[in-house]
Amino acid sequence: MSIDERGAVCVLGTGLIGGSLLRAAVAAGYPAFGYNRSENGAEAASRAGFDVSVDLSAVLRRAASNDALVVIAVPMPAVEPILADIAALAPQCWLTDVVSVKGPVAEAVGKHGLTANYVGGHPMAGTSESGWAATDPELFRGAVWAVGVDEGTRVEPWSRVVRLALDCGSVVVPVLAAEHDQAVARISHLPHVLAEALAAAGAGGGELALGLAAGSFRDGTRVAGTAPDLVRAICEPNAGALERVLDETIDALVAARDSLRADGGLGKLVEQGYRGRVAYDERVAWEITGVTPGAPGWLDELRQAGRRGGVLRTV
Amino acid sequence: MSIDERGAVCVLGTGLIGGSLLRAAVAAGYPAFGYNRSENGAEAASRAGFDVSVDLSAVLRRAASNDALVVIAVPMPAVEPILADIAALAPQCWLTDVVSVKGPVAEAVGKHGLTANYVGGHPMAGTSESGWAATDPELFRGAVWAVGVDEGTRVEPWSRVVRLALDCGSVVVPVLAAEHDQAVARISHLPHVLAEALAAAGAGGGELALGLAAGSFRDGTRVAGTAPDLVRAICEPNAGALERVLDETIDALVAARDSLRADGGLGKLVEQGYRGRVAYDERVAWEITGVTPGAPGWLDELRQAGRRGGVLRTV
Repeated sequence: MSIDERGAVCVLGTGLIGGSLLRAAVAAGYPAFGYNRSENGAEAASRAGFDVSVDLSAVLRRAASNDALVVIAVPMPAVEPILADIAALAPQCWLTDVVSVKGPVAEAVGKHGLTANYVGGHPMAGTSESGWAATDPELFRGAVWAVGVDEGTRVEPWSRVVRLALDCGSVVVPVLAAEHDQAVARISHLPHVLAEALAAAGAGGGELALGLAAGSFRDGTRVAGTAPDLVRAICEPNAGALERVLDETIDALVAARDSLRADGGLGKLVEQGYRGRVAYDERVAWEITGVTPGAPGWLDELRQAGRRGGVLRTV
Repeated sequence: MSIDERGAVCVLGTGLIGGSLLRAAVAAGYPAFGYNRSENGAEAASRAGFDVSVDLSAVLRRAASNDALVVIAVPMPAVEPILADIAALAPQCWLTDVVSVKGPVAEAVGKHGLTANYVGGHPMAGTSESGWAATDPELFRGAVWAVGVDEGTRVEPWSRVVRLALDCGSVVVPVLAAEHDQAVARISHLPHVLAEALAAAGAGGGELALGLAAGSFRDGTRVAGTAPDLVRAICEPNAGALERVLDETIDALVAARDSLRADGGLGKLVEQGYRGRVAYDERVAWEITGVTPGAPGWLDELRQAGRRGGVLRTV
């Protein structure tokens, strides 16, 4: 397949992320179809004109015969069982995923002997909603899509994943699985945990406190409105990295608390946080250019560029 | 002055909150004027057509001769010095404030012998911006405005403060100073502290982490973009209450961290947080009716209604 052709895409799981991806892929001209476990979800997608079935075996056989790029878009707890089916029915298909951790998915992929076919992915997009009803073909526009560049990554699946991400309107950050997981512990999983803690503390103040709550509480607790099972499925597979950054955050809060107790001031936390937010506001997603996929050292060049804030805008 | 008349309003400090209040009061038909310490701020307000001077003595003498309601809208560290001037030059004026803590302001008011004139206030509105340039006469529309109902509150200043808040488009929550300070520690000061901790943790992951950051990090750190001095001026005067709720939050995070370490799960925090956010989303600001200001027990009735989520929409 030439890089100008849009090969078939098979999305497994048509919830918020998978369903939005299916819609975005179709909108971008890909022949795309999908599987969903629940009949309600599959029917909703079908009624909207998309080719989604509850028959996983049939979907995977179709993927195999169409040389489709298979996208795993189920929550982490469902990844392992679905990989067993992929290994049995579509073992030659290129494979990616949109799960929020990369190490555990890569490990499960390896257990099923599919590592050579696989390139991890993670679009940094979402809302506190879930299910087909919340899907949006524009969900990925302007978003960042992490794509794996681990040792052994092959050019063809890598290019197909990057092309799909770009065609959905995202820019691509090349990243090692382990470094991805450490980074998202800080900027995705920790925000969930702190939002839950803040929401619990606010509600602990009863109706008076919730009645006085304004913008800072509303924004700080937004993601605590996500269904608890989904929060667990997003955060808990990254337990190790999340535990380390929680340690760091607890230390910072203890220092602020002790400082308040000692002299009534918040210590250095306020300046540190302000500098962090300014760094976020001023970050520049510069374009990575001059790296030829497959040329000697390409994966290492991409990794290093990703670490320095570089993104791919073309493939 | 009858309740239908809009008496003069004198705003001391025309930054984001005070300046917005001056603009909202003028828009609602109040004869309103103000003082600002910095010449730049006062000139910006004057150029926009508002009556703002850097001559505090002249402004306070005018307030005294016009029977103005004096609104203290300076950061907490500047409250005590300005009270000395008020006590000297406008000791008969009714007095309120828009500072984010109520206990320390009430104490300072007491030191200057102005307690009988004073009713505390706190509009729950703001942005991470500051200064005249950020002011907005619509800032208070749809917001909640906490108004004091402590023992000894007098009907006339209370009615004037409530009327002003309602005319700015807010609803009024009647609340004791001490209960206000405990509540805002939970829903305003803790959000600031957690936003700072999250922003610091994100930036600790370098350009890769900040480059992958999406909605949960953006919203969770929004208020960390507030100028550090302003965050300190908002949070630190409430050190005692903030310290207690930080203790509670640290305990919740330590439990989650220990749970992750023990069995890879976040424990009960996710459900607690979800319930808290749902309670916030589903809160109902029911209207307090049937309380006559000045009638026996009116302050206690209002306090109890405020604790149960009641708001005043008329005076």
